[in-house]
Amino acid sequence: MTNPLPTGATIGIFGGGQLGRMLALAAARLGLKCHVFDPAADGPAAQVADRVTTAAFDDLDAIRAFAAAVDVVTYEFENIPAAALDALADTVPHHPPRVALETSQDRLIEKTFLQDLGLQTAPFAKVETAEDLQQAMIDIGLPGILKTTRLGYDGKGQARLNTVDDAESALAAMQGATAVYEGFVDFSHEVSVIAARAPDGAVSCFDPGENLHREGILRTTTVPARLTPAQRTDAVLLAARILNALNYVGVLGVELFVTSKGLIVNEIAPRVHNSGHWTQNGCTVDQFEQHIRAIAGWPLGDGKRHSDVTMENLIGDDMARVPDLANQPNTALHLYGKAETRAGRKMGHVNIVKPT
Amino acid sequence: MTNPLPTGATIGIFGGGQLGRMLALAAARLGLKCHVFDPAADGPAAQVADRVTTAAFDDLDAIRAFAAAVDVVTYEFENIPAAALDALADTVPHHPPRVALETSQDRLIEKTFLQDLGLQTAPFAKVETAEDLQQAMIDIGLPGILKTTRLGYDGKGQARLNTVDDAESALAAMQGATAVYEGFVDFSHEVSVIAARAPDGAVSCFDPGENLHREGILRTTTVPARLTPAQRTDAVLLAARILNALNYVGVLGVELFVTSKGLIVNEIAPRVHNSGHWTQNGCTVDQFEQHIRAIAGWPLGDGKRHSDVTMENLIGDDMARVPDLANQPNTALHLYGKAETRAGRKMGHVNIVKPT
Repeated sequence: MTNPLPTGATIGIFGGGQLGRMLALAAARLGLKCHVFDPAADGPAAQVADRVTTAAFDDLDAIRAFAAAVDVVTYEFENIPAAALDALADTVPHHPPRVALETSQDRLIEKTFLQDLGLQTAPFAKVETAEDLQQAMIDIGLPGILKTTRLGYDGKGQARLNTVDDAESALAAMQGATAVYEGFVDFSHEVSVIAARAPDGAVSCFDPGENLHREGILRTTTVPARLTPAQRTDAVLLAARILNALNYVGVLGVELFVTSKGLIVNEIAPRVHNSGHWTQNGCTVDQFEQHIRAIAGWPLGDGKRHSDVTMENLIGDDMARVPDLANQPNTALHLYGKAETRAGRKMGHVNIVKPT
Repeated sequence: MTNPLPTGATIGIFGGGQLGRMLALAAARLGLKCHVFDPAADGPAAQVADRVTTAAFDDLDAIRAFAAAVDVVTYEFENIPAAALDALADTVPHHPPRVALETSQDRLIEKTFLQDLGLQTAPFAKVETAEDLQQAMIDIGLPGILKTTRLGYDGKGQARLNTVDDAESALAAMQGATAVYEGFVDFSHEVSVIAARAPDGAVSCFDPGENLHREGILRTTTVPARLTPAQRTDAVLLAARILNALNYVGVLGVELFVTSKGLIVNEIAPRVHNSGHWTQNGCTVDQFEQHIRAIAGWPLGDGKRHSDVTMENLIGDDMARVPDLANQPNTALHLYGKAETRAGRKMGHVNIVKPT
């Protein structure tokens, strides 16, 4: 795809959750239609899409029909089955590139990729057996965290080890899956860079945000982050290095630990990212539009930050606060239209804006 | 409707053009679904709506089914047939109120209403016959403008009279419809106030914008408008007086001429308004969300202006400028997804933003 998609063209989106919803809203601003593919009917993205396919990701006939009906395909999550990508690859371009999905789908591949790029990661070792885990605890030290190499997010598929006595239960929690043992990083805080790359290689990064997690779930992102000018430059250059190495097209999120020894990459996500939601009210062009622009072959927009923002996720019962939040000044609500409020479920977010 | 609509409730929108589209996008931010009713299939709003009814406004069965499927009804244009409102009135609440539609549907009723409120309008007289027109030209003077009392917008259904010799052709252009003869107002520039009122009577006005028309079509709106502090206060108070007199719920646009004798009301529009599109990039909560909040029984949001903005409409061949505009800093594109570009057709707009 070398020519920009014209008004009326259709973006195909794998995944119908809140990220797909906000991608669809951004595409609409550019006059583009969206066709959402998701196993669940009537999800957040389906409510605002021009067309919807309700089918499983292993329904290859449905994927082929979807591919034939759209002009480009993108995804709101990284765990797209390889067979699904195979089924559409001959018919329609898809972004971000497959190598980015394959890299971020597997913690071992991802960390190796980052180290090969000359970037710092937490110390890590592959763990398949109890012996591997014993050796890793010796080499890397305690405390540490054991994570499955694939799947798992928001604290799922992870076990913390404080002493060698935790080894057995931690390994059991992996349920036989290959895992990575990671040493803890002594960091002062976490920041993330939301970076975009266009097909012509142009890169644009949003100002880094500072993230606060609780129970493994992102709670708030604040811009500006606490970073020195040198750290800010490092963060942006490092994100650009990752994008270029992957010949990336679209938006990618890079989570970074700020330490006395520099920035350590926690993980990358080849998609729009929860920690970039502040851009909706802090920039003229937000992360969702930036992603759509990139995958549609448009020039990247102006992502300069015009305001200070704190983004707060609304999780589960936080929805009870909506009537009060709706009354607050400088406050923009973004709700996802999920039918059912459940504990731990991301229901929306709020951007609290302070013009600079 | 005294309780705010919850997440997942459905807004019904009469009219599927760009205003309906941007209302639907704003509703989505609040977790609300939209059901669009429009005679044309696949229009700008249908592309982003959860449900669509494609039917004529005189198809009362379709209107009754639509009313039964939604939680509240609103409109993107003022010329809703009375029978359509009758068909839904028993089933579902609708905002803005009918009296606002009836007032703004008829220039004679509108100007009389405004004068009765103590507001200034251009001098005017009702014209049904050639004799009426002769008398109006004598009473009000030349030049003047003859307009049908109903319908007509963007310069349609209007005829300018520079001399008495123009009377015959001007009257012919009315095609037998009742008309209003208006004297010209000696004004320096036009501004508009976009004002919102909630069911509990709370009123919130956006900062007035300054409008530039060409060939009867709005080209640009710029904030801040050239107004003295006293004029700014007058503009806002005057808009609030109109809203209160109509017991209004929703957003209303008020076009004002700035003259040496004060502000003269040109016309009111009981809906979101083209001259309020700048709010999308100049405020935390824009006119579309403010309208949705009002009709959904939510508190009005924070419409304070955080940036200077110039909104420029993209009309017809202006679409050829999109690739260049997409490359400009401080520039937010809003395209309407219309399949066909036609001369004089509003295809999108661009907000050029300058943080204050």
